[in-house]
Amino acid sequence: MRRIGFVGLGSMGLPMAKNLAQAGYEVLAWNRTPKEAEGLTQVGSPKEAAGTGLVITMLADDAATEAVLPEILEGLPPGGLHIAMSTLGVPYSRALWERHRQAGRRYLAAPVFGRPEAAARGELRIVVAGAPADVEEARPLLKALGVEVYEVGEAPHLAHAVKLGGNFLIASMLEALAEAYVLVEKNGVRREAFYEVVRGFFRSPVYEAYGRILLERRFSPPGFKLRLGLKDVRLIHQAADTTQTPLPLGHLLLDRFLEGVARGMGEEDWTAILKLVEAEGGLHG
Amino acid sequence: MRRIGFVGLGSMGLPMAKNLAQAGYEVLAWNRTPKEAEGLTQVGSPKEAAGTGLVITMLADDAATEAVLPEILEGLPPGGLHIAMSTLGVPYSRALWERHRQAGRRYLAAPVFGRPEAAARGELRIVVAGAPADVEEARPLLKALGVEVYEVGEAPHLAHAVKLGGNFLIASMLEALAEAYVLVEKNGVRREAFYEVVRGFFRSPVYEAYGRILLERRFSPPGFKLRLGLKDVRLIHQAADTTQTPLPLGHLLLDRFLEGVARGMGEEDWTAILKLVEAEGGLHG
Amino acid sequence: MRRIGFVGLGSMGLPMAKNLAQAGYEVLAWNRTPKEAEGLTQVGSPKEAAGTGLVITMLADDAATEAVLPEILEGLPPGGLHIAMSTLGVPYSRALWERHRQAGRRYLAAPVFGRPEAAARGELRIVVAGAPADVEEARPLLKALGVEVYEVGEAPHLAHAVKLGGNFLIASMLEALAEAYVLVEKNGVRREAFYEVVRGFFRSPVYEAYGRILLERRFSPPGFKLRLGLKDVRLIHQAADTTQTPLPLGHLLLDRFLEGVARGMGEEDWTAILKLVEAEGGLHG
Amino acid sequence: MRRIGFVGLGSMGLPMAKNLAQAGYEVLAWNRTPKEAEGLTQVGSPKEAAGTGLVITMLADDAATEAVLPEILEGLPPGGLHIAMSTLGVPYSRALWERHRQAGRRYLAAPVFGRPEAAARGELRIVVAGAPADVEEARPLLKALGVEVYEVGEAPHLAHAVKLGGNFLIASMLEALAEAYVLVEKNGVRREAFYEVVRGFFRSPVYEAYGRILLERRFSPPGFKLRLGLKDVRLIHQAADTTQTPLPLGHLLLDRFLEGVARGMGEEDWTAILKLVEAEGGLHG
Repeated sequence: MRRIGFVGLGSMGLPMAKNLAQAGYEVLAWNRTPKEAEGLTQVGSPKEAAGTGLVITMLADDAATEAVLPEILEGLPPGGLHIAMSTLGVPYSRALWERHRQAGRRYLAAPVFGRPEAAARGELRIVVAGAPADVEEARPLLKALGVEVYEVGEAPHLAHAVKLGGNFLIASMLEALAEAYVLVEKNGVRREAFYEVVRGFFRSPVYEAYGRILLERRFSPPGFKLRLGLKDVRLIHQAADTTQTPLPLGHLLLDRFLEGVARGMGEEDWTAILKLVEAEGGLHG
Repeated sequence: MRRIGFVGLGSMGLPMAKNLAQAGYEVLAWNRTPKEAEGLTQVGSPKEAAGTGLVITMLADDAATEAVLPEILEGLPPGGLHIAMSTLGVPYSRALWERHRQAGRRYLAAPVFGRPEAAARGELRIVVAGAPADVEEARPLLKALGVEVYEVGEAPHLAHAVKLGGNFLIASMLEALAEAYVLVEKNGVRREAFYEVVRGFFRSPVYEAYGRILLERRFSPPGFKLRLGLKDVRLIHQAADTTQTPLPLGHLLLDRFLEGVARGMGEEDWTAILKLVEAEGGLHG
Repeated sequence: MRRIGFVGLGSMGLPMAKNLAQAGYEVLAWNRTPKEAEGLTQVGSPKEAAGTGLVITMLADDAATEAVLPEILEGLPPGGLHIAMSTLGVPYSRALWERHRQAGRRYLAAPVFGRPEAAARGELRIVVAGAPADVEEARPLLKALGVEVYEVGEAPHLAHAVKLGGNFLIASMLEALAEAYVLVEKNGVRREAFYEVVRGFFRSPVYEAYGRILLERRFSPPGFKLRLGLKDVRLIHQAADTTQTPLPLGHLLLDRFLEGVARGMGEEDWTAILKLVEAEGGLHG
Repeated sequence: MRRIGFVGLGSMGLPMAKNLAQAGYEVLAWNRTPKEAEGLTQVGSPKEAAGTGLVITMLADDAATEAVLPEILEGLPPGGLHIAMSTLGVPYSRALWERHRQAGRRYLAAPVFGRPEAAARGELRIVVAGAPADVEEARPLLKALGVEVYEVGEAPHLAHAVKLGGNFLIASMLEALAEAYVLVEKNGVRREAFYEVVRGFFRSPVYEAYGRILLERRFSPPGFKLRLGLKDVRLIHQAADTTQTPLPLGHLLLDRFLEGVARGMGEEDWTAILKLVEAEGGLHG
């Protein structure tokens, strides 16, 4: 039974770690605030988790990853493998690659699409990039976590670029749906009627799920917090800005999520941007 | 065998009229420039087509519809039914309703989602609004044209509002995909790799089809011309403007399509907005 | 003493008509709701005012102008001159030109920059376009109304295009000032301090005046109503849309003013868009 | 005769340092690439310049300032004063304040408005913030450099916030003028005619100067490079982003300048964004 380390037991990390345990891995797990969980062996430091020779990080953002990185690099034996599954910024992911190389450790990026429920069911969609041999080594783990694994290149940060590109599409869809609901309602249409047409037209589980959340205004408890949406949109902006890429729709989203956080909605579900669109149009207050 | 009139044999209208003929209707068809087509009986005027008591119009826009309207109203017997299947502006559709009422004729709006190929296969998605009895009368015809019929209300123009809301979502998706392709490419990702992830994530035939067209840059021959995209975005703008609805993403689209037409790309496929996004980002010239 | 007609005695028209009377013209004035004013001779119809052979219209918009147009054309003797001083849409102004030509009457466009106070002081800035001989004929009148007369071409609607271009610059300045005030305040700066710098830098009476209104939040009573600001931005959009001109900043303004009206602020001063910018940034509620 | 240090002899720094020399200061000047200039004493390091006890930095950006900071802090005697006159980011300026405090040195921010010609004529407009006693100490120097000195608060970074707010207004004006020129031209107006109206209406030397540059399309040699415009807009974005401030017009500018740099126009004058607006509207290629 292979021993692996897992750092970060948040709403995504916990179910992922459990799935790995269930798949037969001995999981040495660490979280900033200790979390007991059946099947996981809690350890006292990220370093200890990395001592297994293969460690996964699933943390909130670049800063949280950076906070554990020195221990990860120290704990990993020479040639050990670090798989970053969080959504990280492209420049930061690129820097991680370089730093692992200089330290004689290996780095793989494998961010995921899916909400906590999908993580729990092992139905994530995983985007992976890195050296082919490293990808092969990681594949059994990734298979335990997701239904699909997409390989997008040999430079690890490409996986984060793809992840951010995907998040951009999702956030764009939210904005479009919110504007459309308000537009049709102001023209006299019941939103339910519009939703059925949208559902039938796109035939996408993503439109179906988000369209329904927006329809029912289920902004709380949050599935994905608006302030994390802002974090992602900032990373999308960064990926554009650092490569001299105008991104008008991305910047529209940035203003939208900044507004949400400025208005105190950071802890609501990110679909709550609908309320901002409604208010702009004079609906609901 | 019921006789019906059909006005407008363009790339959408012709396959639709043929499907009705094949479904057993005697179709008295009229087009501005006469078009012979098997199974259709060509008549000399919209008035003659309307003389059947039930006439469908499938024309380019509000103006083309307005051009035949006097003859339609004159040709229809009292109580006769006009089904407008074009994408019309909401205010114009609302006015049509009123004018039919005053003339003692019935008006049903039934715009469609789908490209010419879908029309040919009878696989359109039809949004219908109008008096319930009129909808029932039209249902057999609509079934011959499409795979789904969505009823969205009793005021006919609601169907056009829904249609425009849907078109807004599609155009928004195009803009988002175009920006995303350029963003990931400028970050080093092959577009093909990104496309596979998008396809797998959304699992929508619409993303699949448009994502591929954008990937392969198949801007010609056009499936839907950019200048018609502009026409639709203008109607979306109108539906927002006349109801005091801010629509920031809609206006971003308006600028995009205005740019496309200003640059002389009006006859290309509307997905050619990708070229504008690429050029802004310094790609391909 | 020359007799002239003056149609429209609103907040701008009334002081203008008075100035003409004071300059020695016999002014036959008409308003939809009769308004007594010293020095003006009230007449019973626009037709009567036009009977003088030279009539000025100063009305709210295209529709209000269109409402009196038949009487104007009927009242003017052959070769008579109509000077439209309202802010009109470019396509409408162009149509007016054609209609006067067909009727054998002359048409001059002479829209003005300035608020009611400036009108009262005879300090308007007037943009005029039309046949050179007509401009010469009008010059003495225009001199009585304003401090500057700018000739911008022989096709009358060019004056309206210039007027709308100017209004676009003013509205853009308002948006920029509003965003800047919020930006610096959220960074800890007192707005007064920022205002002094802006004033000193631009050295423009326009920035000085509007900067102060925004600083003092004097949104009521309105100097220029937000709903009229929306009207102007719509005409700016129209001038762009009808000529295939993308206008991203113009469309940002359109969304801003649509929001203002949708939120019920149409009767406040148009500088009240500051409240929208503040609210977006989480300030003042 | 007081001895002072001056670090950074670029297109702005050089004339400023000369003016200080002419005002009677003994100026110990340092530049990365040595630059001889009459009246200035060249020294071998920023540290030596700071050894005078009062040192001004006038460098390209945050990074260039950071590159000399250790020497500045080391060279300044305890209680010595550093006046940062460059345009710096608000967070960086705030950090500089803290670092000087910890090192027992004083820090004043005094960014300037004005192009190189204004610097040469001693006609800059200077925004200063810091401890009142420090401002008083600096006042004679600032008077030698500019025509106006605006005090905006005691926290030095406030001066940089004001400077960025001002730059935001200028860049917004450029975008507005560019869009307006294209809009009126596409409606048939000669740009010269429009320019005269704008000049007369705003009565601002800033509109007059920039309006003329845009009119004459004098994009080269650059007075202020487009890539530096992008740098400033990025700092504006940062000031907004770090304070949760939506800034739609600011983000429109960000996309515009990103486009300019992406298209290879970074070394042209920043007014060259006019070419982008023209191209979008189908003018000039």
